[in-house]
This record gives sequence, structure tokens and C-alpha cells, in this order.
Amino acid sequence: MTTDAPGGRRIAVLAHEKFPERAKTATGILRYGSDEVVAVLDRDRAGERVSDHLSGVPDAPIVGSMADAPDCDALVIGIAPIGGGFDDSWRPDVREAIERGCDVVAGLHYFLTEDEEFAELARERGVELRDVRKPRDDLTVGRGVADEVDAEIVLTVGTDCSVGKMTVSLELARAAAERGIDAAFIPTGQTGIMISGWGNPIDRVVSDFTAGAVEEMIVEKGNDHDVLFVEGQGSIVHPAYSAVTCGILHGSMPDELVLCHEAGREAIHGYEDTAIPPLSTYVDIYEGLAAPVHEAEVVAGALNTSNVDDDETAREAVAAYADELGAPAADPVRFGTDELLSALDL
Amino acid sequence: MTTDAPGGRRIAVLAHEKFPERAKTATGILRYGSDEVVAVLDRDRAGERVSDHLSGVPDAPIVGSMADAPDCDALVIGIAPIGGGFDDSWRPDVREAIERGCDVVAGLHYFLTEDEEFAELARERGVELRDVRKPRDDLTVGRGVADEVDAEIVLTVGTDCSVGKMTVSLELARAAAERGIDAAFIPTGQTGIMISGWGNPIDRVVSDFTAGAVEEMIVEKGNDHDVLFVEGQGSIVHPAYSAVTCGILHGSMPDELVLCHEAGREAIHGYEDTAIPPLSTYVDIYEGLAAPVHEAEVVAGALNTSNVDDDETAREAVAAYADELGAPAADPVRFGTDELLSALDL
Repeated sequence: MTTDAPGGRRIAVLAHEKFPERAKTATGILRYGSDEVVAVLDRDRAGERVSDHLSGVPDAPIVGSMADAPDCDALVIGIAPIGGGFDDSWRPDVREAIERGCDVVAGLHYFLTEDEEFAELARERGVELRDVRKPRDDLTVGRGVADEVDAEIVLTVGTDCSVGKMTVSLELARAAAERGIDAAFIPTGQTGIMISGWGNPIDRVVSDFTAGAVEEMIVEKGNDHDVLFVEGQGSIVHPAYSAVTCGILHGSMPDELVLCHEAGREAIHGYEDTAIPPLSTYVDIYEGLAAPVHEAEVVAGALNTSNVDDDETAREAVAAYADELGAPAADPVRFGTDELLSALDL
Repeated sequence: MTTDAPGGRRIAVLAHEKFPERAKTATGILRYGSDEVVAVLDRDRAGERVSDHLSGVPDAPIVGSMADAPDCDALVIGIAPIGGGFDDSWRPDVREAIERGCDVVAGLHYFLTEDEEFAELARERGVELRDVRKPRDDLTVGRGVADEVDAEIVLTVGTDCSVGKMTVSLELARAAAERGIDAAFIPTGQTGIMISGWGNPIDRVVSDFTAGAVEEMIVEKGNDHDVLFVEGQGSIVHPAYSAVTCGILHGSMPDELVLCHEAGREAIHGYEDTAIPPLSTYVDIYEGLAAPVHEAEVVAGALNTSNVDDDETAREAVAAYADELGAPAADPVRFGTDELLSALDL
């Protein structure tokens, strides 16, 4: 797997009151990042450890504030609330980080670089504020040319937000690389960008440029690799975020889709009036919507079973998911990616 | 029909090299605006008149540059190229307008207020530069609540861009009002905003806020009227703009859809590799995509026959369109809105 990941820094990750279940940026960085996490900040879990909550990731202490964190190079905001706002209760931690000479990295809709206090303090201390969700100025409309690249394009699509699309794309890219396939990960969201060190934050671009901002990345990387695993966003039936999903579907012109879902989820998170429809509805919508621009097929499913305690029940859930979908399925984090990689035409 | 249209100003409308067929902002303002158009600027047609090209709109001279335009209060940029850029060949006209004390109104992705020369000149001369495509700062994500308003929501959807969605929404709103129905037009694009004097430029908002920016307008107006005619954008199968279309579909939660098409168009304009699929495909995609969020039905079709010379051929085209769609259809500009209004559940 090819990345331009920064790597090698020592970082603290802010995840107040949300670690680990509702801190997907923090857990993504722990699982896939190439920086060393020296502490997680969560005032509700101070004194605990990462390993009390997550397995398969490097351990680190959980502390109550930046003042309690060990020496490090950067503070990363590791939570992304609905709406992407900045919570003022984080202000002392960011201030403390800057005063200690740490860079601060955030993926919020609220830009730290436009916060007067932080901007001035950062200038004084000579540290960098990095808003990875701030798009470049030169993005524009799509040209409808992503299908002209040599690489096979595999896009993760979801039944909802936060079901594991980025994780599945990263796991597939890593596993493909281990099999000797020249694979690259195409990041489209703040966590993917933080992990990879590049990428367009698709949900922050001008809506008219949604497809174009994805297409640009496909065109840039598509002739250098044999397969691109594109990180999907949101869900095509999400009342708030479907526009982003649709733009990625048409802008990336995928050949193959992997439908991601979380075991047991029955309604759109935060929009409980919107029930999760049957899987066949998702397949019909994703394939039907893709086809007039570029034919794509749902060839496999990924089920996130992190909320299922025992492996046996998780295996049953994956089997039931595969059955309902009528395609191979797996939980790539829990059980590996073999079924999914075999289902792809690589 | 209720509008907050500015009205009563004398305006010149810039449409260089594109009037009338490819100047949809200019023609929309001529047809539906409440300002007096004193001249159209088109260097290719200087000396001709609006009435040489369009019927059913107030006449005005066509001039080669702002220097040749009569006294007026504002210059409106009446063309919107793909990508929304500013063409430097328009610079002398904008400069001349400002120097003559005219306000300048534009709906481009390029903001006149951020152009150093224009901004400085406008300050000197005390005129206003108004970028109607610049969204407000306080927009945010949708809440999925547009279906809670009292009004019936009617959305125009299209087979492509520039097929007449705004026109159909405006014609329906006007005709409904003439029948005594309390109807309002919900503008979502630069021309609709210029005509109405309010509205969110949906294709310019942060992509994450696409649905939310529509929803906000529905919530604001939805309990003050019996029916809202929402201006659709783009097409759900457009390689570049489908994200905006999708966000409007889910954000406005329409009850009824009117499918708009231009007679004879066979491929997506500017993306000729993408064929216009059969109408049944559009119906399946629009209704299928809407349903998980809010059920919507394509109840009528609107066919733009402006490129068909004789009425008889146009009538046949409308009949064939209705036949293929399996729903009543009309060309509201050429033949009136009766069939469409009757098809709606008002």
C-alpha cells in the first residue's frame, strides 16, 4: 500500500468524552496512522489505557488534559461532532499544546487557522495549525474522466455514516499490498487525510465540485497503480450527507463496490426517523445510480461487528449479512479480508 | 406567487457571445425578473434587439459593451459558464459599470467582491458588488425535518442541466397563484435568487451542507404557504453535478416531482459520453432514491420545446414525452401549465 503518510511524529489525540466508540478519528489514527500516539485525551477516562478499550492497536495512556500529556510534537483533534464544530471545552488543551510548542492538527468544519486566539498564539510560538478539512482553492467541476485511468477502482459505500468505510478501504489496500498487488488508498475524509498525509476533504468542498474533487485524485493516482481503494463517505439514503456520497459515486466512477454496514444498526444514526432499508434497496440504489455514468457492481459486503462481544455471534452475523446481500462478506478487522479480496476482480 | 424580488431597478444584462440560447440567467431575468432591462450586452449581436430572438418578454436593445448601454442602476452578469469562472473579456464592462456608478450583480463561483480591482473601484465609487452565489456563513447540516412543514412540496428534477427546471417551477408558482393557491417559489440557484431577491445558492455551499441549505429554506417558508415549488438543479445522473441534485432531493423532502427534459437532447450537455438514459430510468432513480428519506412520486413531465420551430411538431413531442413517461406532460412556456397543475395534488 502506498501512502505519503507523515509518520514518525509523537502525537497526543484529543477525544474528550467520546473514546473509543464515538471517536472514530482517534481510533483510525491509532489503528492506521504512522505517528506514535503518546496519549489520548479523554477527561471521562483519565487514568485508563487505550488497551483497556481497543485491541490490535499500540497502547497509550489516557489523560484528562493536555497538561497531563507527555512531551510530543503535535496535538490532533480526534473527534468530529455532527456539524464539525469546535467545542469550547477543548480550548485550554489547544492553548496548552501551542504554548508547549506543539503543532495542532484538526479536521473540523471550524478552522483553527481562522480562530484569532489560536492563530496569534501559533504565530508567537512558531507552531503550525493544520486544518486538513480546508480544501485547496483550485478545485473545480468534474470532467467525467475517472474511468480513463488504468487502475481498477473499488469504492466502499455504506448503509450509514460511521459503519467502517474508511477502515474497510484501508484494510483492503493493506491486504492487497501484502499479496503483491500495487494498491493505493484514496482518502476523502479528515481521518483518511490525517493517516495518509494527502487528499481532498470531499465533504468540505463547494458542492458543485464534489465529484471533481474526487476525480482529481483518481486521475492523479490512477495510472501509477493497479487498483485504487477509494474511501466512501456517508450513505446514499442519508438525509443530510447523501450529496457527498452521490458525488463520490459519480466522481470516482468505481468498477466495484463494497457495501459496508454495522451489525444491528436499524436506523440512520442521529436521524432515527429514517429506517435503514433492506440491503437489496441499497444495492438497487447504488448500482442504479452509478450505471448511467459508469457501471458498478456491489461485489461484496463488509460488516462491522465491533459491538458484538463473542466471535461466534459475530460470525453468524457476517454469514447472515452475506446471505441477505447475496455476495461474499466479512468483518475485515475481526476476521481478515480474504473473502473480500477474493470477491474483487484484481 | 410570493417573492421578495427587488424590482423597480433599471438594469443592463451581460451575455456576451451567448444570447439567448446559452445565456439562461439573462433570459430568466428577462422572463421573470421585476427589474426593467434597459440593454443586453452581447458583442456578437450588437444592434439587434431582444425581440429578434425571444417572444413573450419585454423588448430591449442589444449593445456591444457597457459603454453603449443607456443609464441604469446595475449591471447583472447574465451568463454562467461551466465552472463559474469570470471571463477577463468582461472586465472592461464591469469596470465601466462601476465607474458610471452602477451596482454589479453576479452569480459566479468567482466572487467580484474578492477581485481587488473591482473591490477597490467599488469602494471609491460607492457602489455595491453583489455575489449572489456567495453562501451565508451560518449554514450547516440538515436535520431531516423538511417533511414537518404544512405545505405540499413540489420539486422539479431534470434529465440534465439547462432543461428548464427553474422556468417550470416559476411558471407553476405563478399559475397556481393565479388560481388562488397560496404558492411560493424556493430558489436554489443564482438566477432564481436574482429573480426572487433571496435564497441559498445550493451549488456553492459546503458539500456537507447541501441538504441543510435547502431544508433551511423549506422550514422558513413551509408553514406560511400551501405549496412550495422548489427549483431543482442539475440531474441525478450528471457526472459533475449529481451531488447537488441529490442533496436537494433529500433536503427538500418533496411530495411530488416534475421531470423536466429538453426535446431532442440525447446526451448530457458537455459530457457527451454520458447518454441520456430512458425516462423510466430517471423515474426509478429519483423515486427510489427519495423513498428511504421521504416518498416522492414523479406525477408529471415538462418538456422544453424551445428548439422546435413549429407548434405542431412541439405538440407531438410533448405527447410522445407524456406517453413515454406515463404521466401528463406540457411545455409550460409554450402551451401553459394546465396539464401540470391538474396532475399535482394541490
